[in-house]
Amino acid sequence: MPNNKFNVVSLIRRKRDGGNLSKTEIQYLIDEYTKDALPDYQMSAFLMAVFLKGMNDEEASAIAYAMLHSGKVMDLSEINGVKVDKHSTGGVGDKLSLILAPIVAAAGVPVPMISGRGLGHTGGTLDKLESIPGFDVNLDLTRYVEVIKKHNLVFIGQTEDIAPADKRLYALRDVTATVECIPLIASSIMSKKLAEGIDALVLDVKHGSGAFIKDPEEAKLLARRLVDIGSEFKKDTVAYLTNMDQPLGYKIGNWLEVEESIFCLQDEWPDDVREITLLLSGSMIQQGGRAETLDDGIEMAKATIQNGSALKKLRDIVIEQGGDVAVIEDPGSYKPAAHQTDFTAAKDGVVSAIDAYQVGMASLELGAGRKEKTQPVDPAAGIVLRKKIGDKVKQGETIAVLHTNKEAQFDVALELLEKAYVVEDKAGASRPLITHVVDAGGIHDFDYSRVPALK
Amino acid sequence: MPNNKFNVVSLIRRKRDGGNLSKTEIQYLIDEYTKDALPDYQMSAFLMAVFLKGMNDEEASAIAYAMLHSGKVMDLSEINGVKVDKHSTGGVGDKLSLILAPIVAAAGVPVPMISGRGLGHTGGTLDKLESIPGFDVNLDLTRYVEVIKKHNLVFIGQTEDIAPADKRLYALRDVTATVECIPLIASSIMSKKLAEGIDALVLDVKHGSGAFIKDPEEAKLLARRLVDIGSEFKKDTVAYLTNMDQPLGYKIGNWLEVEESIFCLQDEWPDDVREITLLLSGSMIQQGGRAETLDDGIEMAKATIQNGSALKKLRDIVIEQGGDVAVIEDPGSYKPAAHQTDFTAAKDGVVSAIDAYQVGMASLELGAGRKEKTQPVDPAAGIVLRKKIGDKVKQGETIAVLHTNKEAQFDVALELLEKAYVVEDKAGASRPLITHVVDAGGIHDFDYSRVPALK
Repeated sequence: MPNNKFNVVSLIRRKRDGGNLSKTEIQYLIDEYTKDALPDYQMSAFLMAVFLKGMNDEEASAIAYAMLHSGKVMDLSEINGVKVDKHSTGGVGDKLSLILAPIVAAAGVPVPMISGRGLGHTGGTLDKLESIPGFDVNLDLTRYVEVIKKHNLVFIGQTEDIAPADKRLYALRDVTATVECIPLIASSIMSKKLAEGIDALVLDVKHGSGAFIKDPEEAKLLARRLVDIGSEFKKDTVAYLTNMDQPLGYKIGNWLEVEESIFCLQDEWPDDVREITLLLSGSMIQQGGRAETLDDGIEMAKATIQNGSALKKLRDIVIEQGGDVAVIEDPGSYKPAAHQTDFTAAKDGVVSAIDAYQVGMASLELGAGRKEKTQPVDPAAGIVLRKKIGDKVKQGETIAVLHTNKEAQFDVALELLEKAYVVEDKAGASRPLITHVVDAGGIHDFDYSRVPALK
Repeated sequence: MPNNKFNVVSLIRRKRDGGNLSKTEIQYLIDEYTKDALPDYQMSAFLMAVFLKGMNDEEASAIAYAMLHSGKVMDLSEINGVKVDKHSTGGVGDKLSLILAPIVAAAGVPVPMISGRGLGHTGGTLDKLESIPGFDVNLDLTRYVEVIKKHNLVFIGQTEDIAPADKRLYALRDVTATVECIPLIASSIMSKKLAEGIDALVLDVKHGSGAFIKDPEEAKLLARRLVDIGSEFKKDTVAYLTNMDQPLGYKIGNWLEVEESIFCLQDEWPDDVREITLLLSGSMIQQGGRAETLDDGIEMAKATIQNGSALKKLRDIVIEQGGDVAVIEDPGSYKPAAHQTDFTAAKDGVVSAIDAYQVGMASLELGAGRKEKTQPVDPAAGIVLRKKIGDKVKQGETIAVLHTNKEAQFDVALELLEKAYVVEDKAGASRPLITHVVDAGGIHDFDYSRVPALK
């Protein structure tokens, strides 16, 4: 393809003026960018024009397609069954992948999971898995296929082969104020997920104070865009919109979240983690063809907990990927962070709000997260919450326990928690966790009465 | 100034979201960019955000100020008199600087003129001057001052010292579809002009098919912005809006335009060239304090033609800057292009429209212009029009004569001229050349009755 097939400036100009680009034109821009024939400064001008002028459905699909095909697209057709993965737009304490992937795999549905690392206030599945001593997420794509075949499950990181255009574009968006753009977010997510070789996908699109997207209306737009792209690629795609007004579960931090996940797999759940995990697991089991209805899928998910097969699946995959299974079998044997301190209530009252962003930043400051992509994370650092929204507290009572190996960080983390927690005379009304479902048929309010298994 | 005085991403984000930047913030962006501490890809995202969200008056002045002070600002205070320059937004056949600068200098007003080169369909004053054998536009800034002192006139190109930030930003805008943006155009023009050390400025803001800006309303916005920036910098700034529905004058090409300019200085004018040249000259003479009114200024301009002092001024400056004065004294002695051919009328009728852009591109193809900045130009190439709008033509009659040293280019140039010329049964109504005047007091319709000297 010659470098001058299209005039790049005229393509930028057309988007700038609110016009649309053809699939071939978008493919050209992404291809040229991937092979360094189109400089960053032209791409960033294009991205800003896209940010401000938007993209229609065809364009968003086209950019996802181009990014997907900038690298290797896995073919898992040799593996029996409907391959299903899950993606979450992320939030503080969101360890759901660690729980639902073993559940769904144990229910007989292959889960080929390619995950990311934490950045800023949110953690990443890879960092959490690596807190298990020896656990190797850097499998090559041959091993990736082998491990799924053997266990119906694998956890790896995005390799250089997978959607390299997305990796470069994401880095560029990060430094040019073009991150929060629905078609770009959607195509970035979908290009990576589609490259895994999946047949179906469930999406957890979070909104609220602790989520990347605060506004439910924005979250709906993103969910629709994600589902549209999935449908365009003939993948069975369902998105659930979920509320994130506070951290998910009680533990935040890499090992701390693995530990909480193990307890969940032993049927000792925080309510919010249970509800969303069972929902997404049930959906994946249904999408994977192992259950007729979502409610049946949820019942099957519960059975994998009760019969111990989900926990066994986690143990098996830890062994397969080189991890120390002793810490899974006895989480109490894990070496804790050197220092702990309590965050206590300044007055009597009820926790009325928790700014999950501030909690995530506090955990980062304790060592659990990273401000920049190359920063290492401390597996043992983090925060264990004792109180969540609606809980009563007394002055001096412990609200959260901070874990760190860098004692000097307690002050800044405590300060962030003081900002995060609001204690008032009484709590407000609690909101339902799951608000909407989006599938190829459109967007609907989530109807709890149709999934009695969830309660 | 530390690199992290401001967070660049948050400045881009604010502009993206329609907010405004302070003078200090804009200064920071331009300073960092000039010293290579801010990469092209961040600047281009910022420029696209500016393109789509605009800049207010303070921001446009701030960016002009920052670009002006990115380099040397000339101090001409040792030269007596009010230093006045002219800038045109450019068009096909626009040789007005070559005529008005000698007129105004001959009337006793110092004209320190820093000009540019041609690009695309428009020519540049520097290329035209360089068609005079030996003429040197690359004077250093010491010589620049010396020559103005001696002749009230100098013609040079933008040196590396003058507004280097503008040079870099302009190159970036060119490849990122962020050229046609009024605050960026205005600050680019004004930063260069203000660096010359002028006291006053007249602006010719062209609109119509042959102009850079087609829409008169856009031209008004640009003119107001230019005048506002000038006023902000305490420079007496006046802008005239002029119509450009066809090329200016009859000759297009480097030497051909010098030749036509010499004839004008001998009082043999095309009507359109005469009208706008006298207007702008008269304004400059008035702004330079040598005439009470615009009409008086125009009368003085006419006197410099009639008494030969303007032509003498051109001759003197050609000699001073190393040019061969023989071709000024006898334009017929200039070595013409090796090949000429006629563009003839396909049918009887009246010329009803001439797309000046296509004529400019035809001239470029003949060798008079450049597609890329580093391309050399042919001094002798170009087009001599025989017919303009309103002229009757008969089938087979010559409409224009093409001059080139690259005979093979005739076909493409003739094809462009066929697209450019519209011959119909009768011509439409002609429009006034000068439409509006903009000064510190605002925008006004141009009132021909107040300048009887113009007719």
